[in-house]
Amino acid sequence: MRLTAICPILGVGFHAEVEKETAAWIPPDVESEVRSVGYGVESIESEYDEVLCAPPILEQVKAAAADGTDGVFVSCFADPGVAAARERVDVPVVGGFEPSVLTALSLGERVGVVTVLPNVVPTIRASIRRHGLAERCPSVRVVDIPVLGLVDRSEMLQRLHEQARAAVDADEADVIVLGCTGMSGAAAELQERLAASGPSVPVLDPTGAAIGWLLHLARLGVSSSRTTYLPPPDKKRTRPGD
Amino acid sequence: MRLTAICPILGVGFHAEVEKETAAWIPPDVESEVRSVGYGVESIESEYDEVLCAPPILEQVKAAAADGTDGVFVSCFADPGVAAARERVDVPVVGGFEPSVLTALSLGERVGVVTVLPNVVPTIRASIRRHGLAERCPSVRVVDIPVLGLVDRSEMLQRLHEQARAAVDADEADVIVLGCTGMSGAAAELQERLAASGPSVPVLDPTGAAIGWLLHLARLGVSSSRTTYLPPPDKKRTRPGD
Amino acid sequence: MRLTAICPILGVGFHAEVEKETAAWIPPDVESEVRSVGYGVESIESEYDEVLCAPPILEQVKAAAADGTDGVFVSCFADPGVAAARERVDVPVVGGFEPSVLTALSLGERVGVVTVLPNVVPTIRASIRRHGLAERCPSVRVVDIPVLGLVDRSEMLQRLHEQARAAVDADEADVIVLGCTGMSGAAAELQERLAASGPSVPVLDPTGAAIGWLLHLARLGVSSSRTTYLPPPDKKRTRPGD
Amino acid sequence: MRLTAICPILGVGFHAEVEKETAAWIPPDVESEVRSVGYGVESIESEYDEVLCAPPILEQVKAAAADGTDGVFVSCFADPGVAAARERVDVPVVGGFEPSVLTALSLGERVGVVTVLPNVVPTIRASIRRHGLAERCPSVRVVDIPVLGLVDRSEMLQRLHEQARAAVDADEADVIVLGCTGMSGAAAELQERLAASGPSVPVLDPTGAAIGWLLHLARLGVSSSRTTYLPPPDKKRTRPGD
Amino acid sequence: MRLTAICPILGVGFHAEVEKETAAWIPPDVESEVRSVGYGVESIESEYDEVLCAPPILEQVKAAAADGTDGVFVSCFADPGVAAARERVDVPVVGGFEPSVLTALSLGERVGVVTVLPNVVPTIRASIRRHGLAERCPSVRVVDIPVLGLVDRSEMLQRLHEQARAAVDADEADVIVLGCTGMSGAAAELQERLAASGPSVPVLDPTGAAIGWLLHLARLGVSSSRTTYLPPPDKKRTRPGD
Amino acid sequence: MRLTAICPILGVGFHAEVEKETAAWIPPDVESEVRSVGYGVESIESEYDEVLCAPPILEQVKAAAADGTDGVFVSCFADPGVAAARERVDVPVVGGFEPSVLTALSLGERVGVVTVLPNVVPTIRASIRRHGLAERCPSVRVVDIPVLGLVDRSEMLQRLHEQARAAVDADEADVIVLGCTGMSGAAAELQERLAASGPSVPVLDPTGAAIGWLLHLARLGVSSSRTTYLPPPDKKRTRPGD
Repeated sequence: MRLTAICPILGVGFHAEVEKETAAWIPPDVESEVRSVGYGVESIESEYDEVLCAPPILEQVKAAAADGTDGVFVSCFADPGVAAARERVDVPVVGGFEPSVLTALSLGERVGVVTVLPNVVPTIRASIRRHGLAERCPSVRVVDIPVLGLVDRSEMLQRLHEQARAAVDADEADVIVLGCTGMSGAAAELQERLAASGPSVPVLDPTGAAIGWLLHLARLGVSSSRTTYLPPPDKKRTRPGD
Repeated sequence: MRLTAICPILGVGFHAEVEKETAAWIPPDVESEVRSVGYGVESIESEYDEVLCAPPILEQVKAAAADGTDGVFVSCFADPGVAAARERVDVPVVGGFEPSVLTALSLGERVGVVTVLPNVVPTIRASIRRHGLAERCPSVRVVDIPVLGLVDRSEMLQRLHEQARAAVDADEADVIVLGCTGMSGAAAELQERLAASGPSVPVLDPTGAAIGWLLHLARLGVSSSRTTYLPPPDKKRTRPGD
Repeated sequence: MRLTAICPILGVGFHAEVEKETAAWIPPDVESEVRSVGYGVESIESEYDEVLCAPPILEQVKAAAADGTDGVFVSCFADPGVAAARERVDVPVVGGFEPSVLTALSLGERVGVVTVLPNVVPTIRASIRRHGLAERCPSVRVVDIPVLGLVDRSEMLQRLHEQARAAVDADEADVIVLGCTGMSGAAAELQERLAASGPSVPVLDPTGAAIGWLLHLARLGVSSSRTTYLPPPDKKRTRPGD
Repeated sequence: MRLTAICPILGVGFHAEVEKETAAWIPPDVESEVRSVGYGVESIESEYDEVLCAPPILEQVKAAAADGTDGVFVSCFADPGVAAARERVDVPVVGGFEPSVLTALSLGERVGVVTVLPNVVPTIRASIRRHGLAERCPSVRVVDIPVLGLVDRSEMLQRLHEQARAAVDADEADVIVLGCTGMSGAAAELQERLAASGPSVPVLDPTGAAIGWLLHLARLGVSSSRTTYLPPPDKKRTRPGD
Repeated sequence: MRLTAICPILGVGFHAEVEKETAAWIPPDVESEVRSVGYGVESIESEYDEVLCAPPILEQVKAAAADGTDGVFVSCFADPGVAAARERVDVPVVGGFEPSVLTALSLGERVGVVTVLPNVVPTIRASIRRHGLAERCPSVRVVDIPVLGLVDRSEMLQRLHEQARAAVDADEADVIVLGCTGMSGAAAELQERLAASGPSVPVLDPTGAAIGWLLHLARLGVSSSRTTYLPPPDKKRTRPGD
Repeated sequence: MRLTAICPILGVGFHAEVEKETAAWIPPDVESEVRSVGYGVESIESEYDEVLCAPPILEQVKAAAADGTDGVFVSCFADPGVAAARERVDVPVVGGFEPSVLTALSLGERVGVVTVLPNVVPTIRASIRRHGLAERCPSVRVVDIPVLGLVDRSEMLQRLHEQARAAVDADEADVIVLGCTGMSGAAAELQERLAASGPSVPVLDPTGAAIGWLLHLARLGVSSSRTTYLPPPDKKRTRPGD
């Protein structure tokens, strides 16, 4: 079995990062590969970025499927291109949002997301409504650090703890979802800090949730419904310069 | 005052079509222009097409704003790129979905959409949920004709009447919204046919609703909220070949 | 084309006020008239007032329709008599609530209303639920000034700014709707003040939204659905003294 | 203890009818009176009728309260004037809708209303949404007989059985609410017929539910909340001819 | 007519308490009896307790029905065993939650529950969602006293007033429901204290609401729907030691 | 790592069945055990059965946790005792409903459940509402075969196909969830039959979904939130005969 992670942003550094994070969650008997987009954006933190990053993500998903992958993880909490990819390939495709939020719903009553910047909060809320999950997911908070600024892990963890603690104390959240795949690696430590400062509250890492979800779907032998994700009719489609 | 319509699909024929449809709805004292995408897809009838058509739409929106337009209509019922465009430009930007559905909500209790193909039904339903309007918009039906097949107006009108009639008779809809900007020109006649075969039910054309919405917002002196649509931070963003 | 505004409260002063406000929003090529109720209440700020003001409003709507008006605006945020009027006349009829809230939904994620007194807050919330819009309209606040006390515009504007600022800062609202047609004239200045004290947030005036909505519907050639608003059967109906 | 029923429509025949129906539900140790409106409409089967019947209902409610009644039932399923009356008097006031639907919610999963004419269906649905109960009350059907035509009880019962049976068989309803106080007296027999033609399904009579509700509230010593129903400020209020 | 109250917890003291509370709400012409469980738990303040208390409650309900009772009140706000009991007996069965919350919905816009411990808050919220009432019941607060600690009535009343006052002042609640049948006797005094410290807000006692509900249903001649509560098929069912 | 499946019903035959089904889904490197209840019911197909089966399930869950299990699957679609068990043990506990429905939500827009008897349909719908998932899970259908009658696999599969096909064709479902753990083994074949008679629609087996969910949670290092599932306070709790 082989899984593919798509690094949806520019920069060799991020390719390596996604490789490291993915490796941390994939079992030893499963092969994996990381494919990076050939063009697009440096980081995804607006609807504008989501639009620009999606076409090259789809190119990578299609290439991975053509090469026989068994499942694809688009490494971004905004799930960019995920619905479109499900129309085009037969293997399961997930981003970070859906697997982590659905997993969280089984662990406590209210799910709280802590993400990077105010810019993406309306999009995350819209995504929660689009998935019909607003009744259970009332809280979206931010650490107010851009994706490319998540390098200071100590600062990030402190702010994550502040926001997650505040969400739990304000009775907004019983489970915390990290709202950016760039926060990978922080879930376990945040979970420990929360347990130290109050009752145990589970924390979900979107990369871990996504990889686990693909393994879960593979074992169940299921993939995208073809009454929701119909294969797109053939037609002329061009790129700049074509 | 000057408004811009974006033709989001390939082909000089469609550029002319959008020019004609737009002209039919714009008052004589308002200038207008149509800008066509330079690359992308031949028609938009899947999530996949929506992803591919959005980047060139954004290029045209930004260019129109730079040239001093007063409002932009992206001529597609899927509102592709609209949220992203609102982040990038100060003038109002609308697609076909939001203005027609919101207008319809003031005319009757339940809004029914009649669109082209089953492929786009899940996306339209997801959009209805995303906008928090599911309680009032329970019905999405199809004429089962692809966008490029809408050339036979007589066949299209007959199927529109069948589906709209069925939605009204089944108590699913009190107002009909045409779910594709390629159906422009059919609203008035469909409204007449429905009145002839039962009680009067208003029919909304997405192009007319969108142009009217832009005029409405302009007169009110309002544009997109900057707490929902925050300007995207500067960063490296590339296109294929860059 | 001719539009009619109904002044739903007693007093020649208010008749003149509605004339002034309406004139500010109607384009030069559209005729307009204001009709005042012949009896009823001095101001509308309770369910009780809404009941008492509605019959004379209906009398004026019917008279205006008989005289050939092309659309009617009932100048009150509570939309008193509006649904009933739609059953009785063929031209479009709107109050202040529906056009301003539906317009607001296209400008940002969450709509916040700022109205006059606590007395009308439950009614506005009930109206939001009745329209199926609760998921997007979580905030109703008050300036705590009765309708007849809105004469001190400087005080009113200060309190409007306080409440609107608070709603935006508490993440309850991305768009502000003025919840009383007696607040007309304040929208533009409140919008400026909000932009000066934080991110740009659009502010909607209910009179402007209503007049614009009627123009919008007229251009689209649509009016109330006859499956929602069925013409009332003929029967004996009397007034006091009949 | 004394309860008041308001007959909200014109005609001495109806006054006697309300007296008879009320008497059937009031215990022997409770006094009762019926007060009829002095003007208004012959029957209530549109939003238009609801507007016109409400002011004289309020006059009767206030008079009854001044005379020391302990609770008021406005004998109409549309609850006309009920919210307004709660603002004005301290004793509980109910119509037919709220008590019967809330009672029904304790007897089965889904509540189905069967009412008179298609004209009132949108209003009943709007009322269900206004009360936040749409998730449990999906079905509103009609016997298609006007209020004044409910005199042929045998025809009415047959059509009630047809519609209630259909609602239950279509899995839309587990409890039936009679959606017009003019259907009084039919509940017990309809319940028997339903039990004879399928599983036992409770049927609620709005008059019985309302009278019982007032007795229930009286025993509990509770009345309308003053944070929802605030007393209307004093002001000039006139009637035609004043 | 005879009603049965089930004391769902261990201890002769509680049997006497339920007898006293029930007697306070039952009219003189109605007989009543209290039946206590033969085994189970000392108090019900977790999902775990709810599971363990339910089987002996069902035994008592069945025995009471066999003895010809006309209605059963399970004296616990969690409604333990109530849905199951409705499947097994023909007379109405209620707990404390459903009658008090449904009654409250007729008295004001938003219902707030004040209960004992944080342990039961998620269950009460889940019950609100299960009943489809979340839109109207946003607030669940605690006095933070265990059921067995409710003996100091003065302390309990003070904390009830603090929490109810806070809920009303924060605009979360217009009606207060006492969220534990062990708080019986406090409703009237809490209602007085709230009226003394702010606007009148009704307070509902779950025992009073439940007894009154049974009387209400009996007068209406209705009981549980057999399309929601189907009689369980016969089969082998054993207890420990069988 | 070791997982425990609880057989919640009487009979050695079912113990063996659960062992077989569980073994089919557990990876070779994970140990597993099946524990059967010592008393209770022969099958679970009513709220009544759910009440009676839950106490012995909790006994087995606690015993398994004391013996060091790493996760518990209660083999019943009704999730009996699951919330209570989460309060009492630290390892994850799941039934069949939550994992299969949450997994299904990632595969298509609308989830349809096909279960055994009409008796459990209201409970499943209530569970869907309790989980806040009604907007996405509109369809619950039955094969109309009792649990103990599921022995004729060919008949069961035919009826499953009929109901699932009907749900998909009626546009009620894009993903099918088998609503009884006694239907185990049917998912793969039903999925094939559906693909043969229409578009590919995934089918979820509740046992497979539950086992996979426990593996997923274990890899993520998360368990139940202690702000939703608080440990029950110590107190006297007795069984029959104690």
